[in-house]
Amino acid sequence: MTDIARLAGVSTSTVSRALAESPLIPATTRRQIQQIAIDHGYVIDQRGQRLRSNRTRTICVAIPLGHEADQLISDPFFLQLFGHLADEISARHYDVLLSRIPSPAPGWLVRHVQSQKADGYIIVGQSNQHEEINAAARAFLPLVVWGAHLPEQAYCSVGSDNVGGARAAVDALLQAGRRRIVFLGATALPEIQMRLRGYMNALERAGIPVDEDLIQPAHFTGDTALAAVQGLIARGIAFDAVFAASDVIALGALRALQTSGVQVPTDVSVIGFDDLDLAEHSHPRLTTVRQDLKHGAAALVEFLFRRLEGEETPSATLPVRIVRRDSL
Amino acid sequence: MTDIARLAGVSTSTVSRALAESPLIPATTRRQIQQIAIDHGYVIDQRGQRLRSNRTRTICVAIPLGHEADQLISDPFFLQLFGHLADEISARHYDVLLSRIPSPAPGWLVRHVQSQKADGYIIVGQSNQHEEINAAARAFLPLVVWGAHLPEQAYCSVGSDNVGGARAAVDALLQAGRRRIVFLGATALPEIQMRLRGYMNALERAGIPVDEDLIQPAHFTGDTALAAVQGLIARGIAFDAVFAASDVIALGALRALQTSGVQVPTDVSVIGFDDLDLAEHSHPRLTTVRQDLKHGAAALVEFLFRRLEGEETPSATLPVRIVRRDSL
Repeated sequence: MTDIARLAGVSTSTVSRALAESPLIPATTRRQIQQIAIDHGYVIDQRGQRLRSNRTRTICVAIPLGHEADQLISDPFFLQLFGHLADEISARHYDVLLSRIPSPAPGWLVRHVQSQKADGYIIVGQSNQHEEINAAARAFLPLVVWGAHLPEQAYCSVGSDNVGGARAAVDALLQAGRRRIVFLGATALPEIQMRLRGYMNALERAGIPVDEDLIQPAHFTGDTALAAVQGLIARGIAFDAVFAASDVIALGALRALQTSGVQVPTDVSVIGFDDLDLAEHSHPRLTTVRQDLKHGAAALVEFLFRRLEGEETPSATLPVRIVRRDSL
Repeated sequence: MTDIARLAGVSTSTVSRALAESPLIPATTRRQIQQIAIDHGYVIDQRGQRLRSNRTRTICVAIPLGHEADQLISDPFFLQLFGHLADEISARHYDVLLSRIPSPAPGWLVRHVQSQKADGYIIVGQSNQHEEINAAARAFLPLVVWGAHLPEQAYCSVGSDNVGGARAAVDALLQAGRRRIVFLGATALPEIQMRLRGYMNALERAGIPVDEDLIQPAHFTGDTALAAVQGLIARGIAFDAVFAASDVIALGALRALQTSGVQVPTDVSVIGFDDLDLAEHSHPRLTTVRQDLKHGAAALVEFLFRRLEGEETPSATLPVRIVRRDSL
C-alpha cells in the first residue's frame, strides 16, 4: 500500500480510504488510486474484504465474444454449461447476472468489476481476452474462468484436457485406417488452438505430414463448417475423416456430407468435441470427445466461493473421454 | 400524489422527493411513503421515469418456485425458454439477472423491485404467486409474466392457449379410440389448471364421465410422473392413454410404461405438452402440443421494452398446435 501511496503522491490512509470507497476521498482521486492499485497487481485482500462486507449476493457469468460477436446465449454448448452453473450458484442462494460482451472494449472487465454489480465473476471462454482477464484477476480474487490453462496466467481456470482429448480423437480415426483427416475449428481461441495441437501431435506420432488444406476455420455457429466441408468437396480435395472442434461444428459437417451424398462413416468418419445432448440424437449418432460440463461447473463455482472467502485456488484440467457412437 | 401525501401525512413535494429517492427525505420515511404508494396502486409514471433516468441496463428473469422448490434452472423447459429470452435481451445490449426464488416470502417481488437491481422484470411462471405479482405490477409498469391469463390480473402476461391445446390433445386421443385417459400434472399451477380444464372439456363434449382416479398429480421434474404411472399399474386401474401436462412428465410416463412392459402406442398412447427438443428424440418419439417458446420470448421482451418506455401493453395468448410423432 505504501508503493501505491508513493506512486499516487498521497498518504497510505488516503489509499486505504480510496480502496474502501470512502466518500471522504473525491471520486476522481479514488478512481486514480484504484487504477494505480490495479495496474500494480495489488489490492486483493482489501477488495475482497470490501466485497464481503458489501455483498450483492450476485455472481456474474460473463461471455466475452471478441472472436465471434454473433454467437448466441442459446448456443447449445453455452446453454448446457450455463444451466449447470446457475444450478450451483442458486443452490447457494445467489443470483446470476448474465453478461454477454459482443465486442469487448479495452478495460471492459476491470470496469465491470469496479461497477460492483456482482461479488464474483465466472468468465466463460477466454475468447481473445487473455490479457484483459489477467489484468482484472491481478487486482480481484473472486474470478474464475472456463477455458484453457495458458502460460503466464494470473487467473484460476477450469477446463478440459483439450490437447489430450484431440489426440485421442485423432488416434481413434487413425486406428480406423483414416489418413486424410480434416480439422474444423476457430483456431484463434486458446481452447481450439490446443485441440489443433493435439491433432498435430497425433499425426506427427503416426508419421503423417500435416496438410494445410485440411485445416479449415469454422465458427461455433456451425454454418461455416457446412460451407467449409462443401468447399473441400467442390475443390476436389480428398479426405476420409473430419475432426470437429465442437459438436455443433460436427453437425454442420454431417449436414454438408449428407447433402453431397457422402456416406458417414463408410466414406468419411466424423468425430466431435463436447458430447452435448444433441450428439446422441444426430443421424448418424455422433462419436465425440466428452467434456464433463456438470463436473466443470461444480468445480468453477466451488473455486469461486472459496475465493470469495479470500482463499487462493489452483487451476484444474479435467479429463475427457471418447464416447463411441455411429459416426466413426 | 395528493392522496398519498394525505395518507402519509406529508406534503406532496415530500412524496415526490421520496419517490425520486431524494436523500433530503430520511430513508425510513422514504420507504413508508413508497409502501403507501405501492399499496394504492400508484406511482407507475414516476417510477418509470426514475428508472429511465437511472438505468441498470439489466433485466431480471425471476422464477418463483412456491409450488416446487426443487426445480432446477437446468430443467429443459426453463433452459430453452431462458435461452431465447437471454438472446432477445442481450441483442438490446442489456444484461440478464437470473433470480431463482425457491420459497417466496410475502412481499418478495415488491422488495426485489425496490432493490433497483434491474430496470424491468420477466417472471417465468406464476407458481402460486398470482397475488404477489399483482401487488408488484400495480406499482411498477416494466413487468411481464410468462404464464396463464387469469381473471383480475393486473399484469401483462404472455402464454400459450393452454385450454385449447389440452382440448386438442384429448380430442386426438379420443379420435384414436382411447377412452380411459390419464391426466398427469401439478394442478395447483394456473397453467396446469387450464390444461386440466381443457382435458375435462374434451371428455365432457364426448360424453365421457371424468374418473378422478385418472387425474394424477405430477411435478415438473418427471420422477413423480414415473411413480404415478407405476402406481396406477400396481393398483390395477385400467387406462389406454396418458395426457401429460409437460414433455418432461411425458418422458417419466414413457419410462414407467416401458419398465412395466406396456407397449406405446399399441397398448397406451402418450401425448405431452411443450415440444422441447427432447420430444423429437425420445423412444418412441413423443407426440406433443407445441408451445412456440421462441415467439413467446420475443413477445415478452418486446412488451417489456415498450413498458420501459412507459407504454401499457396487452396480454397475449399464443396459439399451439399438435406435433404428431410416434407415441400416438
